[in-house]
Amino acid sequence: MTSGAFEVRGRSGGARLGRLVTAHGPVATPEFMPVATVGALRGLTAQDAREAGTRILLGNAWHLMLQPGHERVRRLGGLHPLMDWDRPILTDSGGYQIASLSRLREVTEQGVRLRSHRDGSLHELTPESVIGIQRALGSDIAMVLDECLSLPASPEAVERAAGRSLRWAERALAAHREERAGGTSRLLFGIVQGGVSPAAREANARALAAFGPAGDGFDGFGVGGLLMGEPKEATREATAVAAAALPPERPRYLMGAGLPADLIESAGLGMDLFDSVLPTRLARRGIVFTRGARLNLYRARFRDDGRVLDPGCPCPACTRSCRAWLHHLLRARERIAATLLSAHNLTFYADLTRRMRAAIAGGRFDRFREEHRDRWSRTNPDDA
Amino acid sequence: MTSGAFEVRGRSGGARLGRLVTAHGPVATPEFMPVATVGALRGLTAQDAREAGTRILLGNAWHLMLQPGHERVRRLGGLHPLMDWDRPILTDSGGYQIASLSRLREVTEQGVRLRSHRDGSLHELTPESVIGIQRALGSDIAMVLDECLSLPASPEAVERAAGRSLRWAERALAAHREERAGGTSRLLFGIVQGGVSPAAREANARALAAFGPAGDGFDGFGVGGLLMGEPKEATREATAVAAAALPPERPRYLMGAGLPADLIESAGLGMDLFDSVLPTRLARRGIVFTRGARLNLYRARFRDDGRVLDPGCPCPACTRSCRAWLHHLLRARERIAATLLSAHNLTFYADLTRRMRAAIAGGRFDRFREEHRDRWSRTNPDDA
Repeated sequence: MTSGAFEVRGRSGGARLGRLVTAHGPVATPEFMPVATVGALRGLTAQDAREAGTRILLGNAWHLMLQPGHERVRRLGGLHPLMDWDRPILTDSGGYQIASLSRLREVTEQGVRLRSHRDGSLHELTPESVIGIQRALGSDIAMVLDECLSLPASPEAVERAAGRSLRWAERALAAHREERAGGTSRLLFGIVQGGVSPAAREANARALAAFGPAGDGFDGFGVGGLLMGEPKEATREATAVAAAALPPERPRYLMGAGLPADLIESAGLGMDLFDSVLPTRLARRGIVFTRGARLNLYRARFRDDGRVLDPGCPCPACTRSCRAWLHHLLRARERIAATLLSAHNLTFYADLTRRMRAAIAGGRFDRFREEHRDRWSRTNPDDA
Repeated sequence: MTSGAFEVRGRSGGARLGRLVTAHGPVATPEFMPVATVGALRGLTAQDAREAGTRILLGNAWHLMLQPGHERVRRLGGLHPLMDWDRPILTDSGGYQIASLSRLREVTEQGVRLRSHRDGSLHELTPESVIGIQRALGSDIAMVLDECLSLPASPEAVERAAGRSLRWAERALAAHREERAGGTSRLLFGIVQGGVSPAAREANARALAAFGPAGDGFDGFGVGGLLMGEPKEATREATAVAAAALPPERPRYLMGAGLPADLIESAGLGMDLFDSVLPTRLARRGIVFTRGARLNLYRARFRDDGRVLDPGCPCPACTRSCRAWLHHLLRARERIAATLLSAHNLTFYADLTRRMRAAIAGGRFDRFREEHRDRWSRTNPDDA
């Protein structure tokens, strides 16, 4: 099995058209990964996601370790059959929870002690144990444990966390190499840290790349710790520096990138993979993306709007309902509203990345970016 | 169109095998109607309900009048296209809300003034206006406005409410006769009240029947105001007396009957239609019915149970998941758990009524009732 092979098949306007082969099939990039934290998309079945065109899902090792437990997942056959999902799964390591649960954690050189948000129980994650958890889960792409900082952070704190993340990455890679020796086709991605400091990002990216080529070193790279409230320009600069410092023949994943404009802008900086809870979270609030605009279906102006949400969209919200009824279901707090609008948003994201790939293949990504840059911004007049 | 024709095609052990023709197709009885209060099943799409085998849905005129508004529903094309449901819909009148919202209402001979649970706004329902609301909604079977009492109630209160319900029924029928003269195929059901007094139930049923034959008088009859916490034996006696006093050639609907044992027992008393929120409400709490038992999937004993929930069941929970994963989704409060288990319970109910009809057709309903009476009780040892 040649799993792990990443091939760049085309370039346009800074963006790459790629193909990443995993144990559960190939992923054409740029691609977006919806988030199924504990093994389920919020409000959608795996079948719903397949029908939406989703190619790859993201789970979270820390959450799954707590509930239902990674060893239980292994005993029951692994994440794929349990989730009814035979396409690729990437698992995040829990590094992000070091930032988001910062009041509940203690970081040492050995690893991190985190308290469960569920029952307050104390758990230790180490670079090695996180590799073992992801092996038990059976994911296709594992992420190293990293120390993700809340921003803003002092230069010293950024430096310290980036250095520690690098040493952790080396330990994770050593554990993964044992797995590789046993014949796994699981991929391991390192994670570039370094806050919003271009120098720290560049140094961190080069150091991760220096662990070896794909198949010996890391199979790909996440860029983490961004999109956490920092200014857009800082995100952009840190992403651009990291992308430029990473090896061109391996995939790059901008962690937490979720708005359509984020995907388009960062694909133009050479990023290949993206994930976010936004498509489903926004859907629960009534916010949907159509080919033409960002709409908030809660607004009263939709209550008599008998039109299809997005003509031509094959999702159940568009083929089996109208804007006025979706507005009604939201206002009545019927949970099926979230399901229908989440299915719509995932269908939109699958279509958006498909069109991004077509634009790269056609050598017209710059034009695509210009035409779509502001289409889904909050200030779009069609969402007034 | 011969809509409204009800045909009794077989009898066994007190139960009837029937066929009710509506403007949106026939319904074989006994049949269960899942509740879509404001036009949506809790957590399921209409497509999910079709796949579960649901034949007829119930909506609520009072709730739909408040949100999104019956005139808006009419302008947008009616409930059927809005709900994406081309099978029959029965709408309840709002009479039940007179009991359940009793602190928010004032009943007079003219009608009832009710306060919205949503915004406190005051609305008046009359027997005539409720016919108009259901016409605007476009349901296949309309129910008269009745005064439904919370039980226990004094004999005087029961007598007064039953008498008023009868006068309201006459006014509703007059309004519906105007509609009939205009050519509607909508059916109108009267509602038998009378609390747990057999004499009041019998008198009320006979009086409703005396308004005329189907097509001139009522096309069928609900038995209302039961299953509201009174002793099982009182429900049984009031149901039996009402059924015996109602004309045998018209359908009988026991309002609010929702547990499998309720359906089986009351079908054996000659009832044909049933409705309840229980299959979906119980599912949200992890309670499911299989062919063999009632199970609470929240229980810790399911956490390592890799078996199919109910072998042979075609629903997505049974064909695409296992008990341990469903348990996990419930514990993790993933909303998809409610969707999967609701789909399962509706599939179970459709299968249960199908098997009840087969038992009647085969002349073995008594045996069916004996074999299934205690199968889904709370004390079933398999649910220990």
